[in-house]
Amino acid sequence: MQRAAGLVRRGSCPRASGPWGRSHSSAAAEASAALKVRPERSPRDRILTLESMNPQVKAVEYAVRGPIVHKAGEIEMELQRGIKKPFTEVIRANIGDAHAMGQQPITFLRQVMALCTYPNLLSSPSFPEDAKKRARRILQACGGNSLGSYSASQGVNCIREDVAAFITRRDGVSADPDNIYLTTGASDGISTILKLLVSGGGKSRTGVMIPIPQYPLYSAVISELDAVQVNYYLDEENCWALNVNELRRAVRQAKDHCNPKVLCIINPGNPTGQVQSRKCIEDVIHFAWEEKLFLLADEVYQDNVYSPDCRFHSFKKVLYQMGPEYSSNVELASFHSTSKGYMGECGYRGGYMEVINLHPEIKGQLVKLLSVRLCPPVSGQAAMDIVVNPPVPGEESFEQFSREKEFVLGNLAQKAKLTEDLFNQVPGIQCNPLQGAMYAFPRILIPAKAVEAAQSHKMAPDMFYCMKLLEETGICVVPGSGFGQREGTYHFRMTILPPVEKLKTLLHKVKDFHLKFLEKYS
Amino acid sequence: MQRAAGLVRRGSCPRASGPWGRSHSSAAAEASAALKVRPERSPRDRILTLESMNPQVKAVEYAVRGPIVHKAGEIEMELQRGIKKPFTEVIRANIGDAHAMGQQPITFLRQVMALCTYPNLLSSPSFPEDAKKRARRILQACGGNSLGSYSASQGVNCIREDVAAFITRRDGVSADPDNIYLTTGASDGISTILKLLVSGGGKSRTGVMIPIPQYPLYSAVISELDAVQVNYYLDEENCWALNVNELRRAVRQAKDHCNPKVLCIINPGNPTGQVQSRKCIEDVIHFAWEEKLFLLADEVYQDNVYSPDCRFHSFKKVLYQMGPEYSSNVELASFHSTSKGYMGECGYRGGYMEVINLHPEIKGQLVKLLSVRLCPPVSGQAAMDIVVNPPVPGEESFEQFSREKEFVLGNLAQKAKLTEDLFNQVPGIQCNPLQGAMYAFPRILIPAKAVEAAQSHKMAPDMFYCMKLLEETGICVVPGSGFGQREGTYHFRMTILPPVEKLKTLLHKVKDFHLKFLEKYS
Repeated sequence: MQRAAGLVRRGSCPRASGPWGRSHSSAAAEASAALKVRPERSPRDRILTLESMNPQVKAVEYAVRGPIVHKAGEIEMELQRGIKKPFTEVIRANIGDAHAMGQQPITFLRQVMALCTYPNLLSSPSFPEDAKKRARRILQACGGNSLGSYSASQGVNCIREDVAAFITRRDGVSADPDNIYLTTGASDGISTILKLLVSGGGKSRTGVMIPIPQYPLYSAVISELDAVQVNYYLDEENCWALNVNELRRAVRQAKDHCNPKVLCIINPGNPTGQVQSRKCIEDVIHFAWEEKLFLLADEVYQDNVYSPDCRFHSFKKVLYQMGPEYSSNVELASFHSTSKGYMGECGYRGGYMEVINLHPEIKGQLVKLLSVRLCPPVSGQAAMDIVVNPPVPGEESFEQFSREKEFVLGNLAQKAKLTEDLFNQVPGIQCNPLQGAMYAFPRILIPAKAVEAAQSHKMAPDMFYCMKLLEETGICVVPGSGFGQREGTYHFRMTILPPVEKLKTLLHKVKDFHLKFLEKYS
Repeated sequence: MQRAAGLVRRGSCPRASGPWGRSHSSAAAEASAALKVRPERSPRDRILTLESMNPQVKAVEYAVRGPIVHKAGEIEMELQRGIKKPFTEVIRANIGDAHAMGQQPITFLRQVMALCTYPNLLSSPSFPEDAKKRARRILQACGGNSLGSYSASQGVNCIREDVAAFITRRDGVSADPDNIYLTTGASDGISTILKLLVSGGGKSRTGVMIPIPQYPLYSAVISELDAVQVNYYLDEENCWALNVNELRRAVRQAKDHCNPKVLCIINPGNPTGQVQSRKCIEDVIHFAWEEKLFLLADEVYQDNVYSPDCRFHSFKKVLYQMGPEYSSNVELASFHSTSKGYMGECGYRGGYMEVINLHPEIKGQLVKLLSVRLCPPVSGQAAMDIVVNPPVPGEESFEQFSREKEFVLGNLAQKAKLTEDLFNQVPGIQCNPLQGAMYAFPRILIPAKAVEAAQSHKMAPDMFYCMKLLEETGICVVPGSGFGQREGTYHFRMTILPPVEKLKTLLHKVKDFHLKFLEKYS
């Protein structure tokens, strides 16, 4: 690494003269330089400091890449430098990053992407015709037939059509391409919609209802936008179910100090892995209708359902099935992504949102807001296209595609069960069934003495636990406090993405660590 | 297009019963549904309306993709439907979108990208070894060797190293990879830094100094963040030069109503195409030092310099050449992108920023803020790598790469001259030399009668002019009012990206239109 601090190559600077750099030379500046004694300025006397910075950004927290992940990076560097540890590698189970955990990309998706990237390959016999067909279709919809052109801010037209056709097939309810917006991952869509929605000051600040535990993108964006976070608690005793009575409690209390306008749902749940029943979704929609709330349905794990008793129901579908009083009134934005499911293409930052019942004037505002950032990455849009428009029976690539897809999803289902079963064998760990998504969020017993030890280190007890776990085993998980949890309860979030054998080793290491931890602090 | 409005498939909804969708069934909800007469709710009775939305977003304007571009889209649809016009195609000269205007991608860049996308190609003999070498290096730095993994929020390490090496070569001043942040295009970097910087209310709101004319990303982000836009005017009579006395005037006046904290510079200029002299940059840096301003240097057009008398000087280089009093004190963020230059890869949304003299605590805040959006698109990061790490003499691809690069830049230089010369032959059009970037921003005479006609249509006079130009010739350019201009002067921004012959036709059409326009309204 090259360090810049203080290094100046004077050789290439014919006009600079001395430390004051007197070569600025407008008459006024010269005069002021000559007359005034310049005040001393310490290198730490910065314009942008913790005191002067945007206080809303300062208040942001994002645990999934927080201090524990920073520590993990430090430990990796130490390992590289040959420093001895009780383990040989750091296992990053903190984030849903499938390929980083060894999952292979879906071949068909990458074939289409390569063809779009380098169209010379369209004449290569080593690519299947169905991949070429899709690549040609995408390229024809791009300016100059190039992924390097900007797309419309809302996204490439034909890709939005494919997304709408996918939703129509999924829900049995027709979707309009005009309501589809391609995004830079789902996170971008969620923050864009929230940005549109926040307004007001004091008691009329916008309240945004989010589940606790939540995915911390929500709390971070709420903080950035200076909105009010309104927590509703998922029912851990009931498999992290969402109970509408709890929504009622939360909104009632919130009305004292803000204007609740938005209800965010994560289904399947992150970090909690529950899959909402159809009845529960109906209840939520009715509640949103009654309370006049704008609904945000984060459905990025819609392909990740493992429990045989569970099925994914989209909010859009249930909304339409409830009849026109709902379907023509409730404002709903739902989100999907290339990052999760069976494809795990996080790096491309592909995603879409479908927004229905948006006021026509607001649609214009939304498109304007999107246009300031020009467009989502076109390569990510292309990846999204393959996710919603995969090979179908009869196409050349169908068999291989299906095999790869089933392998990933079957594997995840196996690991979900494995993780639940193993955690529940450990005294002091309780783990709800992992019905969906790709995380375990077990509850952990932290003895009073450990809580005291944590306090003496000025750490949340579960942060203390996770730090110890990392330092002793190399396993990086995220403390429950980063997602929110009922006071006095402790959890961590761990992905189930490592390969089966590695995951087994990991779970046994957690078990051994936990038992030792209990022993040490009891 | 499928339209969703009101369409419900009842067949797939066994539990819905009638238009009220009575299947919500928590006890409380049932009771309330039975007892209350539901208020009528019109489909327009939305939660998110122009009145309730985020007022800062409502205030955003973004002309580059504004009403005129919307109108261009409508006209294209009419042409497709066979409606006769005095022209056969719309020419979108509104945006710097090189590939959409027929510029071919740089082969080497796309080869590396294809190899990264579909690593099976690494064994193909049809790809050159230097491209394979770069692809392998990038993939080795990605989790699981896949572009589909998230990168570190700051960007892939080895790509940041390549960016630092590029800056070091360019400036003769060493750059630290730790100060490099990969971004989703330059726009993302600029708005992230501004987001960190804004704070305060009332008279202590953050003032952000921007050039007029400006690229409207700046005004849009300032509006979104509820900061104060502080205009400094470029000197049209002096080839759009930046005059430090004008900066002094602007900051002095601004101090009455806000806290000026940031100075934004666009060099080479967008939309104005001037290239700042080294002396001018020194003056600006000294001014920022004196006034304690955080400097933002938008240098995305650094490869686009056409005038033989001009040379690009980076703010970073000049800052270091001015000596340690400046180089260890002035906080500077500078921005670059894959979208402009000779590669024109807009769709990948690649970019970087180098931020120097950032307070160490703020660095942590910046990384935290970036981590909420996880990471910039990894494919865009890879594209950025090729921009900063192109083939060098002796490498297999060097000759072809150089030929392609020189072709694009030579062509742009030719078109810059052509445009300036032709515009200046037209009575009532004055065009400064296009020293750099990829736009002409000619001043146009709009006769008093045309101003009146515009007013009767509730349009800015230059919007009226550009709309007429679009309707009569199919040429889509952006009115100067979208960028800001001195009161009573009128301009438009037009890219010089169309191929030479097409550009000539276009310029002649503008000329003919302008003469007719003058005649009609004089």
